[in-house]
Amino acid sequence: MDKVFKTPSILSTMDAKQELVAYQKKVDGALSRFFQDKIAEAGRVDPSTVDAIAQLENFTMRKAKRLRPAFMYYGYACFADPNDDVVYASMAMEMIQSYLLIHDDIMDQDVLRRGKETVHVHYGKKYGSRHGESVAICVGDFAVHYANEILAESNFPADRKLRAIVEMNKYVRKVVHGQIRDLRSSVLPQTEDDVMKTYLLKSATYTIEGPLHIGAILAGADDADLETLSQYALPLGVAFQLRDDINGLFGDPAKTGKPADSDLKEGKYTMLTVYALAHADPLEQKVLRSALGNAESTADEINQVREIIRNVSLAYMTGFAEGKVKRAIAAIDTMPYADQGKSFLIGIAEFIAVRDH
Amino acid sequence: MDKVFKTPSILSTMDAKQELVAYQKKVDGALSRFFQDKIAEAGRVDPSTVDAIAQLENFTMRKAKRLRPAFMYYGYACFADPNDDVVYASMAMEMIQSYLLIHDDIMDQDVLRRGKETVHVHYGKKYGSRHGESVAICVGDFAVHYANEILAESNFPADRKLRAIVEMNKYVRKVVHGQIRDLRSSVLPQTEDDVMKTYLLKSATYTIEGPLHIGAILAGADDADLETLSQYALPLGVAFQLRDDINGLFGDPAKTGKPADSDLKEGKYTMLTVYALAHADPLEQKVLRSALGNAESTADEINQVREIIRNVSLAYMTGFAEGKVKRAIAAIDTMPYADQGKSFLIGIAEFIAVRDH
Repeated sequence: MDKVFKTPSILSTMDAKQELVAYQKKVDGALSRFFQDKIAEAGRVDPSTVDAIAQLENFTMRKAKRLRPAFMYYGYACFADPNDDVVYASMAMEMIQSYLLIHDDIMDQDVLRRGKETVHVHYGKKYGSRHGESVAICVGDFAVHYANEILAESNFPADRKLRAIVEMNKYVRKVVHGQIRDLRSSVLPQTEDDVMKTYLLKSATYTIEGPLHIGAILAGADDADLETLSQYALPLGVAFQLRDDINGLFGDPAKTGKPADSDLKEGKYTMLTVYALAHADPLEQKVLRSALGNAESTADEINQVREIIRNVSLAYMTGFAEGKVKRAIAAIDTMPYADQGKSFLIGIAEFIAVRDH
Repeated sequence: MDKVFKTPSILSTMDAKQELVAYQKKVDGALSRFFQDKIAEAGRVDPSTVDAIAQLENFTMRKAKRLRPAFMYYGYACFADPNDDVVYASMAMEMIQSYLLIHDDIMDQDVLRRGKETVHVHYGKKYGSRHGESVAICVGDFAVHYANEILAESNFPADRKLRAIVEMNKYVRKVVHGQIRDLRSSVLPQTEDDVMKTYLLKSATYTIEGPLHIGAILAGADDADLETLSQYALPLGVAFQLRDDINGLFGDPAKTGKPADSDLKEGKYTMLTVYALAHADPLEQKVLRSALGNAESTADEINQVREIIRNVSLAYMTGFAEGKVKRAIAAIDTMPYADQGKSFLIGIAEFIAVRDH
């Protein structure tokens, strides 16, 4: 076992991004073929419902980072050589993503996702908003069933697939717990601890830990391996969400695919806003409180809020996220994982901390 | 194989109802224990979300026929001796039922379900209707994940469980196809064929065929067995839905658990209304058309519609449903299935055709 103490040839962030692009092509190809099949199947079941699957395809195939299926793929790659079967199974992570986003967009009444109109808005324009939301609930429901079928029908040993199915449903339930917390956050005051817990449930578990575990399980990893992957995944997931919040408020809507004021107008408490509320001076706090959750905020008021958060929270949060990324990398740095998986995980961690979309 | 030509000791409808009551007790006990565990788990994940699981429990544990898990249990009993493991696995069918009903109630804006308030109405009263619907989407989502976990964690051979998971997700997707048809039915004109297709997708596949198949698969049945069970399930499912429509319009709301005018006011096309629209005289047709989908219909107008449908459709539809029940029974009558399963299936078929709730 000289592998244990071998220093891996770490990929740079740039290399990890290239790896991700190569993987994206593979999974996008698999998703396209999958939807072709499912649209044909829907035509046989009932032609009048083909459009709903076509909308799910349209939504899913929009330009996206594919981070969740990628984490599953490279989680597998830490323990075994990944192949097309892993690409196929990893589509489940992207189906779960579509399912959650489509339902989430209804809950948040979001109009844009990935730079285009959300599913309920698309159908709302055609048939009225009530009907639009109903069809969108159904479209999301299709996706959660596909996710379970994909894992169950993938080409892996039966016991590993069952364990993966249990794990997937359990961690997606954690997102739903997090979503309920999030919904409550617009009606209840939130502390930093509250927000951190939501981040762990909605982002860290969901975006990184869960997919990594599924990949590792399919490759035959044991509980100790999963525990180590969690030590990487959870801090990185928090950093990922912090970066998301920063981009959501200060990023370019053309890159992030959503309006830069939506979190503020919806009154969602992020670490940025909660920290600012606790550390800004009283006058600034008043400005923050009157703008948060106020759908009628003017562009001027939003800009004022942005400036306050920039001055009070931004440097602190950026440093906090960087510390989390370091902890994440340290957790797997000396582990004897296969190079392809481990190098990606380390390279992508750096990318996550600095990305602008 | 003298069993093949043996006439089974057919249970009467009364016996099948008693069997069903005995099974209901078992599955209700299992569901209570399951929710106790899940509420404790939610407390560990996040105390602020315990209430959502408690609401799912409250909704699921309301008095209900448990027909779907019962069909799974007795589908199993056609091929092997059922035990507590089958009861446990059959909870998945009831979780799917809660998931679909909770989402359905949002789509239809229904206020009552099983005689009590729907989940979105419950939360809507507390936090406003937007918020209520959002939490209800989440509560339904919890249930679909539980359903998959229950099958995956049940005590059966891994290959059978995987096959059952694939089958369950596939047939539940058919319900979602049916739901989209149903949603369109309020914006598009419908023919008898249209309505029949919705019945096959939403009721026959879902309530009877799917659960029977899952039970049979867990017991090790082969494809030919599943095909025979479909010959029983599909006509019976249509009869079941026709009976549901009849009870929905003419039944006692105290027994059916929903207002007797909701289908009419929502403009849902049932076989009763479509048949009446095609066969009533022109004046009656005008009355029907102006009342269907009109939420403002007065009690007088609703009563007029009820009388027209009673005169035009009721006898025809009752006879049609009885014919379907006979076909269902004939499909399994001479099959060499184990008595406990087969007798129940025959007895319950008669019950389904005559039940008043």
